Amino acid sequence: MVTIRDVAKKSGVSVATVSRVLNANGYVHEDTRKKVMAAVAELKYSPNEVARSLYKKKSKLVGLLLPDITNPFFPQLARGVEDEMQKGGYRILFGNSDENAEKELDYLNTFIQNNVVGIISATNNKAKNNYKNLSIPVVFLDRTSSDYPSVYADGKEGGRIAAQEIVERGSKRITILKGPAHIQPAQDRFQGALEVLSQSNIDFHVMSTTSFAFEDAEKWAKELFATYPDTDGVLASNDIVATAVLHEALRLGKSIPKELQIIGFDDVPQSSLLFPSLSTIRQPAYEMGKEAAQLLVKIINQEKIQQQQVQLPVTFIDRNTTRKVDTNG
Amino acid sequence: MVTIRDVAKKSGVSVATVSRVLNANGYVHEDTRKKVMAAVAELKYSPNEVARSLYKKKSKLVGLLLPDITNPFFPQLARGVEDEMQKGGYRILFGNSDENAEKELDYLNTFIQNNVVGIISATNNKAKNNYKNLSIPVVFLDRTSSDYPSVYADGKEGGRIAAQEIVERGSKRITILKGPAHIQPAQDRFQGALEVLSQSNIDFHVMSTTSFAFEDAEKWAKELFATYPDTDGVLASNDIVATAVLHEALRLGKSIPKELQIIGFDDVPQSSLLFPSLSTIRQPAYEMGKEAAQLLVKIINQEKIQQQQVQLPVTFIDRNTTRKVDTNG
Repeated sequence: MVTIRDVAKKSGVSVATVSRVLNANGYVHEDTRKKVMAAVAELKYSPNEVARSLYKKKSKLVGLLLPDITNPFFPQLARGVEDEMQKGGYRILFGNSDENAEKELDYLNTFIQNNVVGIISATNNKAKNNYKNLSIPVVFLDRTSSDYPSVYADGKEGGRIAAQEIVERGSKRITILKGPAHIQPAQDRFQGALEVLSQSNIDFHVMSTTSFAFEDAEKWAKELFATYPDTDGVLASNDIVATAVLHEALRLGKSIPKELQIIGFDDVPQSSLLFPSLSTIRQPAYEMGKEAAQLLVKIINQEKIQQQQVQLPVTFIDRNTTRKVDTNG
Repeated sequence: MVTIRDVAKKSGVSVATVSRVLNANGYVHEDTRKKVMAAVAELKYSPNEVARSLYKKKSKLVGLLLPDITNPFFPQLARGVEDEMQKGGYRILFGNSDENAEKELDYLNTFIQNNVVGIISATNNKAKNNYKNLSIPVVFLDRTSSDYPSVYADGKEGGRIAAQEIVERGSKRITILKGPAHIQPAQDRFQGALEVLSQSNIDFHVMSTTSFAFEDAEKWAKELFATYPDTDGVLASNDIVATAVLHEALRLGKSIPKELQIIGFDDVPQSSLLFPSLSTIRQPAYEMGKEAAQLLVKIINQEKIQQQQVQLPVTFIDRNTTRKVDTNG
């Protein structure tokens, strides 16, 4: 049985230093840390974290619940959370809820049973009761909440900006693709766009879509042009749907952005690789993940929190599915 | 303190049935399971899985190590693993290695310290020694290994098929974009393509690229056309790079697929949404994840394994960046 003393002896440092390295707790010089980790590896020392978590009544695991990692917005969030948590020595217990309340509850139970010290949740389950009974801190991510600490982008403002930009660039018959009704951020961006268009003199249609899935996006795009063949501006519910609309418009021989302008939402990495590249509203997904992780760690450490609700700004990314603003009026 | 007996009483079933539900172990009727879970929720019963894992020396956690979840190939793998593990009541402890050996070792230590019952790893670290000392089962995913159980697609055959298809469709000056040297599947597909082109009468170039990252893909695409402006067929190292090549070719005014054919690799979901939609070699990512999970669960349960190495087939997806085969010869 290899002990912490063996590791200390092998690496030529004190037991306290080895402990600091293993617990990622307090300052240790990088060279020292490498020496200790080398000794740990060589001696195959493995402190039993489970035994320790029972003793300390505290582990270094954090639960992360996302709707669906195959939607390309969420890997960015997840990396932000993980990279920040990694720094503090926390590790991620992970699950996709598929916006299914039973699956969500099941994962929350798993998290608790494995003694996570906190949870970051990006789900839309209205039954927030699931969270009310938890005795550990929860931070909502990509979701607004007045009851819980939360980190989100300003979706309503994003919707407003998208509508203003497409109007300013001359679209006259705009279609808003309204995202799924049960997904709050989709509704926020829709409400923002609606607010601006309602107050304008521009004709517009609203078309409801019920998912953000790749396999459905093509269907919405076909339906859009079948129903509103003369639309000359589309505010899409996210970049996946915008990509499908762009594809379908090109297939129909429409000239982009001359005859039709398109603005997406999210700015997922692939949007800049399209041709024409997609104009969109950028949500800072990676930064949102990092902010949520920082906020949760502060709460876990009982540090003073300045703000329970952290709203990050959105920005218009002016690429090639929108026309340039006519500065001559 | 709520006990398992309270849950049994509340839901009107035996303690053994409650135990079967909570351990996802043995047959329980769906209605019974729902009744038990409702009682668990109402009574806020939470068996301490950590205490139990110490007692049983066995938890229901599985470690999943991926290179980088923001590469859109990997979320598909991860969902396959998770969905299959979910069925058996296993949960995922998750990390991205960024192909960094130290980070990989760090995550492996975390997995062990949290008493995972098995590990699925999709990393390229040559120092397989990290895995040799583990006393729990490991399945390599998206990686070939003769020493360990592994699940992978036939990358070499994929490279061969891509080369055959582009030659058959008339490209005469082909460029192979060779992916990162340290990523084995990238080398496999390159070797397959090389084998076919070497034996043909076709001129071809090989251009090395050192990453699969979105932020680099555009750079390779520009370099490609700057170096080989008259190339009329590109075998890309993956779909991200293929997307960047397609975008750059359209920007340069090339007619696709008339003047230039492009074949990607992976078939990530966004590839079918491009315009023209991307012809590519499909790896069955979701199925690979499921297969790896099934294999690991069998090994954990000490069931008899038919095959340690599971190779899944790849297929050519004939979309619109390749010409139709001239059947008149």
